[in-house]
Amino acid sequence: MAAIIAALSIPFATQAQRRGGPQVKSPEVADGKVTFRILAPKAEAVKLSAGDIPGVGQGKEMTKNSEGVWEVTMDVAPGYYRYNFNVDDVPVIDPRNPSTSESNNNTWSLVGVPGAKWMDTQEVPHGAVAAITYYSSALKKFRRMHVYTPPGYQEGKGKYPVFYLLHGAGDCDDSWTSVGRAGFILDNLIAEGKAKPMVIVMPAGHTGQMMFGGPRSTRDEFAEDFTQDVMPYIESHYRVKADRKDRAIAGLSMGGAQTLNIGIPHLDEFAYIGVYSSGVFGIIPRANGPAQQGPTFEEQHKDVLDNAKLKKGLKLFWFGTGKDDFLLETSKATVAMFKKHGFDVQFHESEGGHTWINWHDYLHEFAPQLFQ
Amino acid sequence: MAAIIAALSIPFATQAQRRGGPQVKSPEVADGKVTFRILAPKAEAVKLSAGDIPGVGQGKEMTKNSEGVWEVTMDVAPGYYRYNFNVDDVPVIDPRNPSTSESNNNTWSLVGVPGAKWMDTQEVPHGAVAAITYYSSALKKFRRMHVYTPPGYQEGKGKYPVFYLLHGAGDCDDSWTSVGRAGFILDNLIAEGKAKPMVIVMPAGHTGQMMFGGPRSTRDEFAEDFTQDVMPYIESHYRVKADRKDRAIAGLSMGGAQTLNIGIPHLDEFAYIGVYSSGVFGIIPRANGPAQQGPTFEEQHKDVLDNAKLKKGLKLFWFGTGKDDFLLETSKATVAMFKKHGFDVQFHESEGGHTWINWHDYLHEFAPQLFQ
Repeated sequence: MAAIIAALSIPFATQAQRRGGPQVKSPEVADGKVTFRILAPKAEAVKLSAGDIPGVGQGKEMTKNSEGVWEVTMDVAPGYYRYNFNVDDVPVIDPRNPSTSESNNNTWSLVGVPGAKWMDTQEVPHGAVAAITYYSSALKKFRRMHVYTPPGYQEGKGKYPVFYLLHGAGDCDDSWTSVGRAGFILDNLIAEGKAKPMVIVMPAGHTGQMMFGGPRSTRDEFAEDFTQDVMPYIESHYRVKADRKDRAIAGLSMGGAQTLNIGIPHLDEFAYIGVYSSGVFGIIPRANGPAQQGPTFEEQHKDVLDNAKLKKGLKLFWFGTGKDDFLLETSKATVAMFKKHGFDVQFHESEGGHTWINWHDYLHEFAPQLFQ
Repeated sequence: MAAIIAALSIPFATQAQRRGGPQVKSPEVADGKVTFRILAPKAEAVKLSAGDIPGVGQGKEMTKNSEGVWEVTMDVAPGYYRYNFNVDDVPVIDPRNPSTSESNNNTWSLVGVPGAKWMDTQEVPHGAVAAITYYSSALKKFRRMHVYTPPGYQEGKGKYPVFYLLHGAGDCDDSWTSVGRAGFILDNLIAEGKAKPMVIVMPAGHTGQMMFGGPRSTRDEFAEDFTQDVMPYIESHYRVKADRKDRAIAGLSMGGAQTLNIGIPHLDEFAYIGVYSSGVFGIIPRANGPAQQGPTFEEQHKDVLDNAKLKKGLKLFWFGTGKDDFLLETSKATVAMFKKHGFDVQFHESEGGHTWINWHDYLHEFAPQLFQ
């Protein structure tokens, strides 16, 4: 059997293995350090790119050994990070790492440094994260979303509260699951009794290939898809409780703005709202941008903002933004605007910037406050 | 809002966009042709690699335009294919294509050419494909599997038959879902009334990083994980019927051999067995390999092979292998061996070779015969 398997393996061996080239292990995680490696003998310059790993910045130089393997070792705090290589200006995911994280326009390699137990894979009951294809009647095309069902759901008993969790502009519906670790964060919180078992719905926030750069629709396509297709699909296909007190919505960056664009006009449907590293886009006039056109968010939603009865049913209105986040002032101005209208807003100003390091933390802080 | 989103997009723009480089679209699918492109101005040679696209062979040369974009256009039959680029000997997934397919050691880009309706995304009810993390008590580590639940399952009613579907040596537990299209093939068959709604379990066939090349265990680690952990997990966490007539198992290549290694000694548990592009490994003595050691498969399983009662409950024993498959003789010898022992074996010799083109077909042919 071993000999046959060895023979069978030849068609599936990596290119380097077929050529008898060096065996390359990447990423190698040990003692809080990560070594990244890539075989590229002909390349002139190779850098590590990784938005969220502190110290990488615009790219960390790698050095080449005599076999043509480029390498860099970094101290990396426990967490889950996207990265890729820049090989002579070509973005290259790690050819030795099958673990990836999809974003809006491309796919990244994914590395985990264990040690942050609350988001590590632990020996606790695990939920299931499913990819769902549905036809959007609003957008007239197929769309995908990811849905986390908690431990026990698949057995078929009971109804669960539902949490809609939106991604950012650089992301897609896979991102909260892969780099975001949402499923594992919830598995751990539920196992500790800190969060209620819930269904988490992670829809696709971009509605077209040309989100940026192409002609913009005047429709709020995402809000239409969300209210006409995503929510009705979930409420008809999943065992979720379909009332305000059992519905939450939150999002990061672009998804935080979408959360407010959906959550405020439909405040009668959501009892929990979270805004991570975001706020009302355009709330701060930009010196170098065109003037805001049309009515402001505050003007558009005046009736809701001043409706005391609607506010009463909002059990949590939570903002989290990092001190170094380029949207910090937007968050603060948004919080101030809601407070002016009498909302009981919680604002958590954290360390750090506009990164998944904070979004992991915010989810971990927000989820236990839901449906209690 | 548009201006703010445009500003927000800057941190998330692709490298070429930030630099004002050429906009590259890849892959571009139109009229049965696919154009693959990659921006690599400094590269000396770029090839398209794609195991299953006829005509690519060991790599299809691409040509560079004045902007540094390499390109090749090919006629590609409707279907779903993995590919990547070889850029100066570095394997590179398509930086412009977020769609990927994970394999054992790396990740591929994925392209779909619509037109084979039976595996395209159609406007029919869709099931859900979930990634599940479980702790393997047999292997003392965390493992992942994918589970397809048919339309209606998530609503919580009824029990379903279960089909265990195993991948090949070059693959992982994601492969039947991504490049394999298993969920979409079943969605379409179920919508047409041709296949029974069923749960499909796609476990991870490799049990260690060093499946090939490293020291081999004498244990059948996969069979232990499968029987001690995968099946009990599914039968305790999912609403599946836990009896022989509602259980099927099939696999491709390495997964076909695993199917026989599990299905024959546990023939009392499976009523349907499928072997795609495979057979009993080692059934044909190899001129250039070491002699078979220990008892043969036939000797090991003599009691089962000659047990008429067990055979009677086997409702389908199906083999499919292509005329150009390097395992064709292995398949034929395996079929002959089972026939010799009185098994009612169906052998489908198809066109083609050891490719996903055939594995799509075999699943599409096999699944409607289950649980009828």
